[in-house]
Amino acid sequence: MCKRFNPRSLGLWLGQMPVGTFNDITDVPGVKVGNVSLVKGEGPLLPSGKGPVRTGVTAIIPRSDNLYLHPCWAGIEVINGYGKSMGVPFIQEMGYLNCPLMLTNTLSVSDVAHGVITYMLQQNPEIGNDARTPNVVVMECDDSFLNDIRGRHVRPWDGLLALQRAGGGPIGQGNVGAGVGMSCFQLKGGIGSSSRVVKSKGRIYTLGMLALANFGQLEDLIISGVPIGELLTIQAKGYIPGSLILIGLTNAPLTRWQLRQLARRASLGMARTGSVSMTGSGDFSLMVSTAPFEDSNFISDWDLDEFFRAVVEATAESIWNALFLAETMEGRDGHVRQALPIEETIELIKAWRGGYYNRNPFPMS
Amino acid sequence: MCKRFNPRSLGLWLGQMPVGTFNDITDVPGVKVGNVSLVKGEGPLLPSGKGPVRTGVTAIIPRSDNLYLHPCWAGIEVINGYGKSMGVPFIQEMGYLNCPLMLTNTLSVSDVAHGVITYMLQQNPEIGNDARTPNVVVMECDDSFLNDIRGRHVRPWDGLLALQRAGGGPIGQGNVGAGVGMSCFQLKGGIGSSSRVVKSKGRIYTLGMLALANFGQLEDLIISGVPIGELLTIQAKGYIPGSLILIGLTNAPLTRWQLRQLARRASLGMARTGSVSMTGSGDFSLMVSTAPFEDSNFISDWDLDEFFRAVVEATAESIWNALFLAETMEGRDGHVRQALPIEETIELIKAWRGGYYNRNPFPMS
Amino acid sequence: MCKRFNPRSLGLWLGQMPVGTFNDITDVPGVKVGNVSLVKGEGPLLPSGKGPVRTGVTAIIPRSDNLYLHPCWAGIEVINGYGKSMGVPFIQEMGYLNCPLMLTNTLSVSDVAHGVITYMLQQNPEIGNDARTPNVVVMECDDSFLNDIRGRHVRPWDGLLALQRAGGGPIGQGNVGAGVGMSCFQLKGGIGSSSRVVKSKGRIYTLGMLALANFGQLEDLIISGVPIGELLTIQAKGYIPGSLILIGLTNAPLTRWQLRQLARRASLGMARTGSVSMTGSGDFSLMVSTAPFEDSNFISDWDLDEFFRAVVEATAESIWNALFLAETMEGRDGHVRQALPIEETIELIKAWRGGYYNRNPFPMS
Amino acid sequence: MCKRFNPRSLGLWLGQMPVGTFNDITDVPGVKVGNVSLVKGEGPLLPSGKGPVRTGVTAIIPRSDNLYLHPCWAGIEVINGYGKSMGVPFIQEMGYLNCPLMLTNTLSVSDVAHGVITYMLQQNPEIGNDARTPNVVVMECDDSFLNDIRGRHVRPWDGLLALQRAGGGPIGQGNVGAGVGMSCFQLKGGIGSSSRVVKSKGRIYTLGMLALANFGQLEDLIISGVPIGELLTIQAKGYIPGSLILIGLTNAPLTRWQLRQLARRASLGMARTGSVSMTGSGDFSLMVSTAPFEDSNFISDWDLDEFFRAVVEATAESIWNALFLAETMEGRDGHVRQALPIEETIELIKAWRGGYYNRNPFPMS
Repeated sequence: MCKRFNPRSLGLWLGQMPVGTFNDITDVPGVKVGNVSLVKGEGPLLPSGKGPVRTGVTAIIPRSDNLYLHPCWAGIEVINGYGKSMGVPFIQEMGYLNCPLMLTNTLSVSDVAHGVITYMLQQNPEIGNDARTPNVVVMECDDSFLNDIRGRHVRPWDGLLALQRAGGGPIGQGNVGAGVGMSCFQLKGGIGSSSRVVKSKGRIYTLGMLALANFGQLEDLIISGVPIGELLTIQAKGYIPGSLILIGLTNAPLTRWQLRQLARRASLGMARTGSVSMTGSGDFSLMVSTAPFEDSNFISDWDLDEFFRAVVEATAESIWNALFLAETMEGRDGHVRQALPIEETIELIKAWRGGYYNRNPFPMS
Repeated sequence: MCKRFNPRSLGLWLGQMPVGTFNDITDVPGVKVGNVSLVKGEGPLLPSGKGPVRTGVTAIIPRSDNLYLHPCWAGIEVINGYGKSMGVPFIQEMGYLNCPLMLTNTLSVSDVAHGVITYMLQQNPEIGNDARTPNVVVMECDDSFLNDIRGRHVRPWDGLLALQRAGGGPIGQGNVGAGVGMSCFQLKGGIGSSSRVVKSKGRIYTLGMLALANFGQLEDLIISGVPIGELLTIQAKGYIPGSLILIGLTNAPLTRWQLRQLARRASLGMARTGSVSMTGSGDFSLMVSTAPFEDSNFISDWDLDEFFRAVVEATAESIWNALFLAETMEGRDGHVRQALPIEETIELIKAWRGGYYNRNPFPMS
Repeated sequence: MCKRFNPRSLGLWLGQMPVGTFNDITDVPGVKVGNVSLVKGEGPLLPSGKGPVRTGVTAIIPRSDNLYLHPCWAGIEVINGYGKSMGVPFIQEMGYLNCPLMLTNTLSVSDVAHGVITYMLQQNPEIGNDARTPNVVVMECDDSFLNDIRGRHVRPWDGLLALQRAGGGPIGQGNVGAGVGMSCFQLKGGIGSSSRVVKSKGRIYTLGMLALANFGQLEDLIISGVPIGELLTIQAKGYIPGSLILIGLTNAPLTRWQLRQLARRASLGMARTGSVSMTGSGDFSLMVSTAPFEDSNFISDWDLDEFFRAVVEATAESIWNALFLAETMEGRDGHVRQALPIEETIELIKAWRGGYYNRNPFPMS
Repeated sequence: MCKRFNPRSLGLWLGQMPVGTFNDITDVPGVKVGNVSLVKGEGPLLPSGKGPVRTGVTAIIPRSDNLYLHPCWAGIEVINGYGKSMGVPFIQEMGYLNCPLMLTNTLSVSDVAHGVITYMLQQNPEIGNDARTPNVVVMECDDSFLNDIRGRHVRPWDGLLALQRAGGGPIGQGNVGAGVGMSCFQLKGGIGSSSRVVKSKGRIYTLGMLALANFGQLEDLIISGVPIGELLTIQAKGYIPGSLILIGLTNAPLTRWQLRQLARRASLGMARTGSVSMTGSGDFSLMVSTAPFEDSNFISDWDLDEFFRAVVEATAESIWNALFLAETMEGRDGHVRQALPIEETIELIKAWRGGYYNRNPFPMS
C-alpha cells in the first residue's frame, strides 16, 4: 500500500486563505474528535449480519461545557435531503445544538442515538423532569458497498466509546471512525478535515470543517480544478449513491442566523470537488459556533465574506483530504475501493494545462 | 371515572363536511393502526429508570404493500421544529414514504427506530445491497410529566409488536399506544383521530387524520369556538412544553407537491383548538397518499380546497377526540392529568353565547 | 347603510390579552399609517381601463428614522405563496426591512413600487453609489371583483401620497386605502387592525397587527368560534380567490430569528376566522420590530409564548375588524359586496350554543 | 479593443457533456430571447438621473404558447436572497410560470413589470375577470458601478420592446440587454449562456442556461479550475456587491418537484467559477420546462443525475461566457470595467499546472 499524503503537503493549490495549526477541525479551540473504527472479517457477506464489518462511529464535541445546559448556536443546510440523519428539524427551528455530534452508517443511527441518550442522561439528571429534552444529532452515510450494513455492527456502547475517546488534534483522517467503510467518487472515501484562519475586525478566529465523504461517481471527480475523474486510468467500480456530511465549527461569535448562512456556503465547497449532488446523495452541512451565548463581539452581516470563503475552501479541502488520506480497502464480497492514486493524480494535474495537452490545438496561440 | 364520549356523539358542531364510517384514520381503505401501551408501577420516580411507566408506541401502516418497494407519495410540514422526530428531511426532499409511521416518546425514538429497521430488513433482503435505504420515520412527543421517560421503557420489540398488531378500525383513542402518557392543554391527552369524505370530480375519497396530542396550556384551550380553558373550574397543573404530531392519510391520488400543501393546512386545524404553537412544542404534520404511483386520475391544484377543508376539520376534531376520549391518569410522583370534564365542557359551551353571558351588556340589544 | 361597530365594542369575546389604546397597529409607538382611497365611477366595466375604480394604497411606516440607514429587524412567513408580493426573498435572507411597507392591488404593485423607489431616492442620495439598494416591499391582494383592476388606477404618486399622509392612530379601517375594493368570505373586506399589550420580564411591549383581508368563501367564515358563514341568511355571491396580507409590528427588541417565529403564528390567528388558505389565496405574514438594532434587552426564546398569543389574537381580531367595519360596496358590473350583517351575526352568536340549538338532542343532558 | 471568443471556441475544458447547436439557451426548442440595450452619454453622473446610461432589459420567452393559459412547470432556488427580484414566492408555492421572464437592473424592476403587465393584459382579455392573475417575474442585478441606476432609464416600453424582439439563437452575449452594465469578479460581466444535450431513456433533451452575471471579487475568480483572479496582472477596481441570476430551460417533461431539484444544482455550477455568494449578492436560479403539462413521458427521480450534470456544467460555462464575451466598458464617473484579458487568461491556464509552477518544489517528484 502506497504511503498517503494530504494534498497540501504535496504543494497543491487549495485556496488563498491561511490554515490553522493542524489544518483540521480541532484547530478550533476546545473541539474534540473521537473515533471507533470497526474492521472485522472478510470474504462474502455472511448470513444474519455476521460481517464482514467495515464501519464505525465518529464523535465531535464542540466544547467541553455541558452542552445541554450551555448549548451552541448552530445553523444547518440540507443540500440534498436524501438522507436519514437525525436531529435536523430542531436545529432548523431553534438554531442551537445541545448534544455532541455523531457520525455513523445509515442503519446504525438509532444505535448511536441510543448511546448518546445514555450519555446525556448520565450527564444531566434533570432530563426527564425538565421543560427541555436533548436533541440528539446523528448524521450518516451509507457504507454498504464495503460493509455489512444489515449487521448494524455499531452499537450504543461504540457511540459512548467514541465520545470517551474524543480529544484534540491532529485527528485521524481517511479510514477512521464513521469513515472506515465510506466510498467517494467510487474511490475510497472517509473522514477528511481542514481549517482556515479568519481575520475579522482585528480579531482572529478559526473555522474548521470535517467531512464524512461518501458520494459521487468517478467521472465527476475534480481535484484542484482538474477533471481527474475523467483522466485517471483506474476503472470505476460499482456505484451506490452515497452522501456527504459536512460539519463546521468556529470560535467566532456568529448568530444562529449567520451560521445558517455559513452552512449554505458548504455546498459551494462541495461543488469544487465535482459533486453534482446526485439523486440518493444525502448532503447535509451543519455549522456550529463554540462562542458562548454571552459573547457580544457581534460580527456584522457585511463582514461574513471571509467566513464564507473559509467555509468554501475548507470544505473542498476536507473532501480532498478524505480522498488523499483514505487507503485502499477490501470489504464484503470482494468489493474493493481503491485509494486515490496520488502520484498519478499529481502528474495529471501538472500535465493538465486546462485541457490543452490532449485536445485540439488552441486557435489563438 | 366518568364515561368518555367523543364530541361528535354528543352533537357538538365540528365542521361542515361528512365523516367516514368510523370517523378515524382507518376509514382510508387499507390503513392499519397498532398500539402497544405500557402502564406499570406507580408512586415516585424510581432510580435507574425502573418506572413508573406511562408510555407506548403506535404504528400506522398506510397500505399493505411492501412500502420499501412501493412507496407512498408524502408531504411534510414542520409547523414548529422544536421536536426530535426522525425521518423528516428525506420526505422533504423526495416526497415519499418507504417505511411505516411510528409514534412514541421523545427518548424512545431510537429504540423504536431500531425495531423498524429490523422489520424492514426482515421484509427486504435487498437492503444492504441496494441503491436505496429505508427512511425510518419515528415521530415523538415528550410524556415525561406522567412517565419515567429516562427509563426508555419502549423497546425495539415494542415497535415490532405495534406493527404486528396493526389492524383496521375503529381504532382505540385516548390513552393508547404512544398516547398513554401524553398531556394536552394540561389535561390528559393522547391519541385522537377523525376523518372526512371528499367528493372531487365525481369521485369519492377519504381523508383521515391521527393526532398524538401533547401540547398547550389550559388557558388556551378552545373547543368548538368556546374558550373552555378559561372557563373550566379545574386547576391547571404543571406545564411541560409538549408537542403535536399530526398524521394524515388519503386515498386520493395527490402528488407529493400537493400533499405538502395539504400538510401545511393541518396547522390551521390545530389553531382551532387554541394552540399558539408555544416554544418547546414540536408540531409536525405529515400527509400521505395511499394511491399507487401509477394512478393517473390527477387532481388539479384548483380542486384542492375541499381537501384543505378536510384536513383542517379532521385535524381539529382529532385533537378534541384525544381530549374527550383520554381518561384521567396518575403517573410518576403523584402527577395527575385530569381528563377533560365532558359534562362541564358541554354545559359551558351551551351557556357561552359568544361571551355575552358573563360580560358587559351588549350595546345593540 | 347600517352603522358599523367593531366586535370588541359589541362585547364579543376576542381573546384573553389586554389591547392597546386604539386597539390598532399604531398603538406600537412611532408607527404611522397612511391611505389613498380611490373610488370613482360606477356601472359596467369600461373599455381601456377607465373604471369603475374601487381600489387604493396603504402605507405603513414602522418608525420615523430613515429606514434605509436604520433598518428594522423583520421576519416573514409565506403561509400560501399564491401571491405577487414584492420584496419577500430579501427579508427571508437578511431578516430586515429598509423601506416602508405598502399594500395595494395585484396589478398595481409595480406602480406603487415605482413610487416607493422615488421616495427612497429622494431621501437617500447615496443610493446608486452604495453597496446597498432598497428592498421595496409592496404586498397585494386582488380586488378585481369590485374594481377595474386592468385599469391600474393606483399610480406611483398615489404611493407617495399615502406615505405623505401617514400618521398615528386611530386608523381608518374597512373600505380604506388598499382595502377599498377587497372582499372577505364573499362579504365586504378591507383593512382591519388590532393590538395587544405584552408583559415580558417587567417590561411592557405592544404588538399590533394590520390585515388586508380579501380571502375565503362565505361557508367557511367563523366569528368568535361560531360558524357564521353557514348560519347567515345572506346569499354568497361570486367568488374570486383572494389573499390575505398580515403586517405585524412590535416595539419589543426581538431578533430576526424570533420575528420569523412570530410571523409563523399569524396563520394560527387567520385559522380562527375559518380560513383554509384555499388555492389562489396568497397569504403572507410579515413581522417587524421597531426596536433599534442596538437594543440589548434580549428576550429569551422561552419568553416568546406571550408574543405568540398576541400575534394569534390580534390577527384574528384584525380580520374580524375588517369585516365588521367595512361597508357594503357596489363595484364594477353591478357586483356588490354586502357588509357583514352585524346585528344578525351577534344574534346568531348569542343563539348558537355550540350548535345545540339546531341539532339533535344532546344525549347526556 | 481585443476580439472576444468564448472559452469553448478556444478549446478550454468545460465539462464532459455534449453541447447544443448554438451552445446557448435557444437550443431548447421554442425558446426566444430579446434584448434592449441602453448605452447613452458618458462622463460624470448627471443630476436628476440624466445619465450616463449603461443598462438594459432582457426578455426570455419559454415557448410560443400563451403562457397565461398554458403555463410551464418551474422550480426556483434562492441561493442567496439578497436580491429584489419579483415573482419568486408564487413559483415556490405553485411550481409554474405564467409570464415571460425578464431581467433588468435593480431599480427598474417595477418599470419592466409595468411593461409585462401591459403585455399580459393585451394578450389576455380575461385578466381582471378571472380567478387568476399573472405572476410577473422580473429578476435583477445592480449595475450601478457603471450605470446611472437612479435614472431608471429602463422604461415599461423597453420591456415591451425586448419581448417583441425576442427570437431564436444564437443569442447575443456579454454587454447586451440587462447585461450591458453588469460587472463580474470586478471585470466586465453581463449575459452568458450555454447548453447541454441530455440523453435519458432513449430520448434526447436539451437543457440551456442563461446567466446575468454581476457578482464577485476578482481574487475569487476561478476559470476551468485555475484561480485566475489571483494570477491576473490586472488591478481589481471598486467592488459593489452584485448578484447572479440563472435561468434554465429544458424541453424534458420534468415535474415541478424535479425542476426545483434542478434549480438547486445551479449553485454548484456557480461555485465552479469561484463564487462564495458574498453578502449582498442576490443569487437566484430558476428552472423551467417547456414540455406541455400533458406530456406523460415522466422521468424518474433516479434518472435526474444527467440533468443535474447538465445544469452544473452549463451554469459554469454561462458565467464564463459572460466574462469572455463582454467587452471593456466605461460608465459613469470614469468607472471602467475591463474585459477579462483572454490571452493572458489562457496563458495562465496553460502554465498553471496545479500551482506547482510558482510554489515550493513538489516533494514526491
